[in-house]
Amino acid sequence: MTVGIGDDAAVVEPQRGTLDVLTTDTLVEGVHFDQAFVSPADLGHKTLAVNLSDLAAMGAAPRVALLSLVLPDAMTANALDALVEGMLALAEQHGVALVGGNITRSTGPLVLGVTAVGSVRRRRVLTRSGGRAGDELWVSGALGAGAAGLACLQRDPPAAPASDTELTDCVEWYRRPAPRVRIGMLLGRNRTARAAVDLSDGLGDGLRQLTAASGVGATVDGSTIPIAPGAHRWFEHNGVDPLEAALAGGDDYELLVAVPRTHRRRFAAIRKLTRGVPFTRIGELTKAPELVLRTTSGNRPIPVGYEHFKQA
Amino acid sequence: MTVGIGDDAAVVEPQRGTLDVLTTDTLVEGVHFDQAFVSPADLGHKTLAVNLSDLAAMGAAPRVALLSLVLPDAMTANALDALVEGMLALAEQHGVALVGGNITRSTGPLVLGVTAVGSVRRRRVLTRSGGRAGDELWVSGALGAGAAGLACLQRDPPAAPASDTELTDCVEWYRRPAPRVRIGMLLGRNRTARAAVDLSDGLGDGLRQLTAASGVGATVDGSTIPIAPGAHRWFEHNGVDPLEAALAGGDDYELLVAVPRTHRRRFAAIRKLTRGVPFTRIGELTKAPELVLRTTSGNRPIPVGYEHFKQA
Repeated sequence: MTVGIGDDAAVVEPQRGTLDVLTTDTLVEGVHFDQAFVSPADLGHKTLAVNLSDLAAMGAAPRVALLSLVLPDAMTANALDALVEGMLALAEQHGVALVGGNITRSTGPLVLGVTAVGSVRRRRVLTRSGGRAGDELWVSGALGAGAAGLACLQRDPPAAPASDTELTDCVEWYRRPAPRVRIGMLLGRNRTARAAVDLSDGLGDGLRQLTAASGVGATVDGSTIPIAPGAHRWFEHNGVDPLEAALAGGDDYELLVAVPRTHRRRFAAIRKLTRGVPFTRIGELTKAPELVLRTTSGNRPIPVGYEHFKQA
Repeated sequence: MTVGIGDDAAVVEPQRGTLDVLTTDTLVEGVHFDQAFVSPADLGHKTLAVNLSDLAAMGAAPRVALLSLVLPDAMTANALDALVEGMLALAEQHGVALVGGNITRSTGPLVLGVTAVGSVRRRRVLTRSGGRAGDELWVSGALGAGAAGLACLQRDPPAAPASDTELTDCVEWYRRPAPRVRIGMLLGRNRTARAAVDLSDGLGDGLRQLTAASGVGATVDGSTIPIAPGAHRWFEHNGVDPLEAALAGGDDYELLVAVPRTHRRRFAAIRKLTRGVPFTRIGELTKAPELVLRTTSGNRPIPVGYEHFKQA
């Protein structure tokens, strides 16, 4: 950074030979979160995480972030400190410099905005549109944790039973998701993945986005979709089909990628570098434009979108 | 632009040999504007203008912008269209591409955020901190128009008398300020100006920022401060000292620059290229750290900040 916070704008030296990647995402109290069960530090973490997840899906290395805070009068200085510290802790973890920002008063809800800027070499950009029929579809991590964690917190009392550590993990994931930054960068190397999208709005939405941008369809084998064990139990216990929930639930921040069959060995090598984050093959891209879910009870269309679990 | 709206993030090619300049600013309904007298198209214009003004104060050429819209349910599709069109019209005027954005629902006020990214050659960056004792202080345009325009609109009925075209100009300036993008870029050439700040929060605030960052003081000759004629009359008519109002009033978006005496000829040459925007010499930077205003009734301290005219 050449000029930072305190001038009219921040000045940053671009990384030689790379492209700038830019994304902005905003979280609004009462729409995206409820302060009753998400702490200011969680919010700081999450607002940045959501943006870093977008950069990860482009294969970009995050570099700098700008913060926009719209604060209700009721917000205390302590809460603000905690929020900024929660964000800075995640920023540090990923080598991101907070170079600018803007704080203003709100006459209504707390509104948190981040713009994150990363860099990527031209030949390593992961777009949504690069998928081709025949490519294998893989997802990182496990799905449903964000949705189950949120559903837990919307209960009274807002918590998972302490005895169920797997469900507690889901709540923690909802509060502090880990953006797959390193994995996104690895997948861009040697063009191992041909297309990628993050699952902030659920697997169903991610499949729709990737296939629409690539001009293809997809077939997904329901039995292979990895569902977080705590989430799986929670959904079953509450009479929700875990598969539907994992497809529709948002807040997962995993990556869905399309890998050409010819890159299988490259991809296998990368899967050894993910520091314990598993990848699961869930299906493939097809020439036919439909989104088909194969289940033991037959084929059905894939539910799309995450409105299902969105807060009122 | 390599990848635009519709992917996880936008991908932009940096301009060879330049630095990235980044700024973010957010306007909040009820804090920064009142929809009773500012149209959606004005708001779109103004939100971008505020950010371009920050880039101008760095000597940067604006390139791309990202938009964050937090919309109340009551906002109509027509209003949203008008807002985006107002922004795009200004963007086009300055060759700015809108490469990304984020739209979400608000449970409260309308919140408009823009992150603007520009580029500048390393030796042309205008910071706030480059001023030295002895440098001349100059301001672009005329001051007070934003404050007088706003004060007019806060009356009932919210308008300037149509017969007073100079006051109508002030209202128009409040609604649709013209960021001094081209002038900022000219001033960065050959390092003609040594420091710059935009006057979004008033001349008093700008003087404080520039002198504090440069580690100097300033003496300003009150009789030389250029005040928009319509604003001058409005203030006098309403029993407000025009000088105080011009110092304290925000929403001016003019530039305050420090020019070394040795660069006088360079600066004179640049003043011929501003397409009719005047520059006025108002004082100089001093070794003594005070901010002194010379008036016919003696010296006094310079009022700082724009809280004065801020909406409740």
